[in-house]
Amino acid sequence: MKEVKYCYVNGELSLVATATIGINDLALLRGYGVFDFLAVRQGAPLFLDDYLARFERSAGVLGLQLPFSSGAIREMVWSLVRINGLDQAGIRLVLTGGYSEDGYAPAVPNLVILEHDLPPRNEQLWNQGIKMISYAHQRELPEAKSINYLTGIRLLDLLKKEGATEALFHDNGWVRESARANFFIVSEQGRLVTPEKKILHGITRQRILQSAGHFIEVEVREVALEEVFAAREAFITSTTKGNLPVVQVDDHLIGDGKPGPVSRAISTLLENQIAAHISQTVQAQV
Amino acid sequence: MKEVKYCYVNGELSLVATATIGINDLALLRGYGVFDFLAVRQGAPLFLDDYLARFERSAGVLGLQLPFSSGAIREMVWSLVRINGLDQAGIRLVLTGGYSEDGYAPAVPNLVILEHDLPPRNEQLWNQGIKMISYAHQRELPEAKSINYLTGIRLLDLLKKEGATEALFHDNGWVRESARANFFIVSEQGRLVTPEKKILHGITRQRILQSAGHFIEVEVREVALEEVFAAREAFITSTTKGNLPVVQVDDHLIGDGKPGPVSRAISTLLENQIAAHISQTVQAQV
Repeated sequence: MKEVKYCYVNGELSLVATATIGINDLALLRGYGVFDFLAVRQGAPLFLDDYLARFERSAGVLGLQLPFSSGAIREMVWSLVRINGLDQAGIRLVLTGGYSEDGYAPAVPNLVILEHDLPPRNEQLWNQGIKMISYAHQRELPEAKSINYLTGIRLLDLLKKEGATEALFHDNGWVRESARANFFIVSEQGRLVTPEKKILHGITRQRILQSAGHFIEVEVREVALEEVFAAREAFITSTTKGNLPVVQVDDHLIGDGKPGPVSRAISTLLENQIAAHISQTVQAQV
Repeated sequence: MKEVKYCYVNGELSLVATATIGINDLALLRGYGVFDFLAVRQGAPLFLDDYLARFERSAGVLGLQLPFSSGAIREMVWSLVRINGLDQAGIRLVLTGGYSEDGYAPAVPNLVILEHDLPPRNEQLWNQGIKMISYAHQRELPEAKSINYLTGIRLLDLLKKEGATEALFHDNGWVRESARANFFIVSEQGRLVTPEKKILHGITRQRILQSAGHFIEVEVREVALEEVFAAREAFITSTTKGNLPVVQVDDHLIGDGKPGPVSRAISTLLENQIAAHISQTVQAQV
């Protein structure tokens, strides 16, 4: 992993090694904050405006105001990408409840922008697909990308024991998402289906919903766990994972237990969108 | 408010004004951590061993290990109380997921011990009692005192608008607790009743359950919201609040809309326990 040298703390370029936040911040005391995470490819932050818009929406759900304009944050992200000099990376925007007077009510938010080196993706994982385990859990304030990952992180040991990569959260048998990704199936009827409600509206999910209709019928609605077990294909989607095939949920093989043709087609679709976006972004910067 | 000068960060006595935590800590990035909060009265930390035991249990639920022994933490708490010199205060213990390599998996936890000045209690609030509003919400990992207060903090604006002090969380009509306190009623049948499951096991709640049986019949079981509306009395309990009478929930007056005799008796019971504890603790320190 390359060492990432710089970050932004409240608009100041800072060294990651020494950057800190005061101990009265509401993220530390009360887990109160939101974040977002976007990818950098070929030195370009991907779909930055989409992520900035969601970041601001998440902040609004928690009643927090961005201490800088979207334009100023956009500039900081570009500046960080240039100065750290990583071709392929992740950018994390974190907005906290700030230094609370009484340790409970939000104050002026603190904004941290971090860059993370990302290793090249594990092709074997994409070629083989992953196993998920179902888990009864409804994420709190699901429409906001809050920093709360209590259940997701706590499940890491169980996932390891079960040989699974992610947990598939369901609310009384209605499928939602995993801790860090959205979820799709190709139904028995050959339609692309993804849960509608009480989920985070992923940027990758949105891109698929906007473009997959050209080659497959798409349904956004409640999805039952039983429908997943009987699905032809399944995959999860996220900024870092793109679409990652799911070949097993609990003891149920999905389809023939191998990544299917729709998953592959969606991968190509996403790669094409990213390539087009990079070429536009690089042209705009020249 | 008196200024609190010192805190402990990972075992080092530090100035609160300059104490910080690194930006890769899992509390900041993922809201992953636990805490506890105890009262200091007449310069003595109250029921410290009970709080330390719960702090360690909470850490265990999140798979975190205390980086110091309970004995060492106890010494730090006493040292902080002496050096800050506050007669009446609160002590906050915070244990975070630590500096995570990948921004997700827990590492060596960070331990922060803070002291907060507490104003004398608002007697008017205790004499008049408070209003609550019911709110459908089940706390995540309720048995751990995690730092996650997303819903509680987000409700502050609604509480203000409704003229209420706290929200009464219920899970499909089954009463649980408020964001920062346990909940009791005196039922129509004259029994002291408090919810049993999916709640934080409060230290004040526990003290009441251990001692109230001398003058009232006690039941620990599921409590329906309808039973609250018809109750003779209600109160919430916490470290800072002791037992605080509830005289209204939504549009329903509780009893005659004034604090009742059982609430007053429990207040006396708690005050006597605290007085006895302080005198024992001070003797043990002499």
